[in-house]
Amino acid sequence: MNRKIKVGITHGDTNGIGYEVILKMLEDSRIADLCTIVLYGSAKAAAFYRKSGELQPVQLQKIDTAADAHDGVFNIINVVPEDLKIEPGQATEIAGAAAFAALEAAVADLRAGDIDVLLTAPINKHSIQSPTFKFPGHTEYLEASFRSDENPDSRALMVLCTDELRVALVTTHLPISEVPSAITKEAVLGKIMDFNRSLHRDFGVLAPRIAVLSLNPHAGENGLLGKEEADIISPAIAEAREKKIMAFGPYAADGFFGSENYKKFDGVLAMYHDQGLAPFKALAMDAGVNFTAGLPYVRTSPDHGTGYDIAGKGLADAESMRSALYMALDIFRNRRREDEAHRRPLRKQHYEKEKNSDPTIDLTKED
Amino acid sequence: MNRKIKVGITHGDTNGIGYEVILKMLEDSRIADLCTIVLYGSAKAAAFYRKSGELQPVQLQKIDTAADAHDGVFNIINVVPEDLKIEPGQATEIAGAAAFAALEAAVADLRAGDIDVLLTAPINKHSIQSPTFKFPGHTEYLEASFRSDENPDSRALMVLCTDELRVALVTTHLPISEVPSAITKEAVLGKIMDFNRSLHRDFGVLAPRIAVLSLNPHAGENGLLGKEEADIISPAIAEAREKKIMAFGPYAADGFFGSENYKKFDGVLAMYHDQGLAPFKALAMDAGVNFTAGLPYVRTSPDHGTGYDIAGKGLADAESMRSALYMALDIFRNRRREDEAHRRPLRKQHYEKEKNSDPTIDLTKED
Repeated sequence: MNRKIKVGITHGDTNGIGYEVILKMLEDSRIADLCTIVLYGSAKAAAFYRKSGELQPVQLQKIDTAADAHDGVFNIINVVPEDLKIEPGQATEIAGAAAFAALEAAVADLRAGDIDVLLTAPINKHSIQSPTFKFPGHTEYLEASFRSDENPDSRALMVLCTDELRVALVTTHLPISEVPSAITKEAVLGKIMDFNRSLHRDFGVLAPRIAVLSLNPHAGENGLLGKEEADIISPAIAEAREKKIMAFGPYAADGFFGSENYKKFDGVLAMYHDQGLAPFKALAMDAGVNFTAGLPYVRTSPDHGTGYDIAGKGLADAESMRSALYMALDIFRNRRREDEAHRRPLRKQHYEKEKNSDPTIDLTKED
Repeated sequence: MNRKIKVGITHGDTNGIGYEVILKMLEDSRIADLCTIVLYGSAKAAAFYRKSGELQPVQLQKIDTAADAHDGVFNIINVVPEDLKIEPGQATEIAGAAAFAALEAAVADLRAGDIDVLLTAPINKHSIQSPTFKFPGHTEYLEASFRSDENPDSRALMVLCTDELRVALVTTHLPISEVPSAITKEAVLGKIMDFNRSLHRDFGVLAPRIAVLSLNPHAGENGLLGKEEADIISPAIAEAREKKIMAFGPYAADGFFGSENYKKFDGVLAMYHDQGLAPFKALAMDAGVNFTAGLPYVRTSPDHGTGYDIAGKGLADAESMRSALYMALDIFRNRRREDEAHRRPLRKQHYEKEKNSDPTIDLTKED
């Protein structure tokens, strides 16, 4: 099967910088050599932002369904009314509904196998709320969408990545006051295992080394600043080690990032959103990617928001969007490679054992 | 008064990297041209770490009290028994008691006016606990020590700084579960005011611009991820603005640090320890300084811990300690300059008003 990987892209909140970063990314026509793009959006909105931001023209081919997508072409499916009202920088219900329409269509096509991976432009988590969308973010929506499928245990893991640093979160979009009660041994252990699996399957790391951060400052300072390290996190790490997962910690977040300790690990598991994301973004600058691990399909997104303050001005940086595309392709290929290896395992070889390599085996006896 | 500024240095936990970073700092003899050093510690411990870390020899002059300190010399006062047991990398009661002895002596000398500023090497917050020291850290101990003085309202503010970035904290050494209840409008407003005063008095910024971070992820996402932004933090910012303090926010921590927004402000006020310190240390690398603002005396320290894993090996980096010394001197000079300006205010000048500079004023009428 040599056809190109089909990448579904959702336009996100139509009053944000979504179109701008998508169009800037697609200025590089070599992307069409790597993959087939299916943009879920609006040709008129694309034209609006191309003009307002004075962007390069990009050829978008209108199609009706993803199954019709032309190989190696930038395809677009209109998912919103022609007269969609665009108000750059404004949080509106219309823009939220447009974001959801794109997401819903793309998820259906992922399920049907008409696209292979999903790349999402940023949504406004408030505008998108509706009777059918009651989630704090993409991650939680996708988790719920795919759980009802043939994967009843599908569990999302939010991973922020650059080429040098991968940070996963135990809790994602929770108020700080609800974080401590969500940090249970089961939750921490489960996320360690999910992260370990993802680092192996999605990133091709054979034996991942995972650093686990503490919940409290100074890793709880031996109980002086909190008990969760001793009562919950350390036991979860110990249990992971029993399962042969190389988990270490818990480490105090500030010292961990300050000493560049993260360079010694394949992944860092943070307990909550700002603990992981504030240092991640400080270090990643414009190149960070948000990857949702643990789902049957690959989904990535840039690590920035709707950028209302600069929407429609041509000022947005497409670096993170571009990185998100390449990472989605890499992860998809890694998964395919692993699946093929499992389908066609190497035939077991008969190795000649070196003499005395294991003294408990009687080498004189042939069988 | 032209005598050199007298800098008291406490040795911190005697099993950590304190002596190493102090001695490495003092290798530069030009420091003696800038200030007079009074090290509260142990000549034997200094000799031990000089030998084990293969450090350059540093001339330390033994004195009995800080009042006897020789100008422009590295003085040392023995505050622990001669036979102090040193076990590099071990958390011991002996090392904790030694840390406290130095701190207690230095604080007494600050009060007596025998030293001008305090520079503290790292303590182990667990080892130092005793019936007389029941604090989660230096900051809280110093706040309590000086509150009983002539300054009944003395209130400490933890500020982490480099030349480019200053981060202050509303809450410091608290378990995460206790953070939300400590975030009150009074607390946030008080810290904004303290920070504003410190940026002005200690750092010489005339009209400081302060960025206030949110408590919850995504700045609460309009209430979807928490109410504290709308109920507490925004009203505190509004009240600060009424007091003519240029406070802005609340900003989501991850986006704020990711977009380098911090470069537009003179100070960043974070709600809790890891939110401020993890990105700060990720950005500051080895040059961060911890400054305790709001006290009658200047106190700085390096922003790293005891470094037990590398203690006694000669591997510690003294960059942060060195920066802490220079910052203490700078802040002391800024305060002295402000105090002198207040003591000798410029005589009020009689300015001739430019014609029509304000059309509401009747320029024809003299008074």
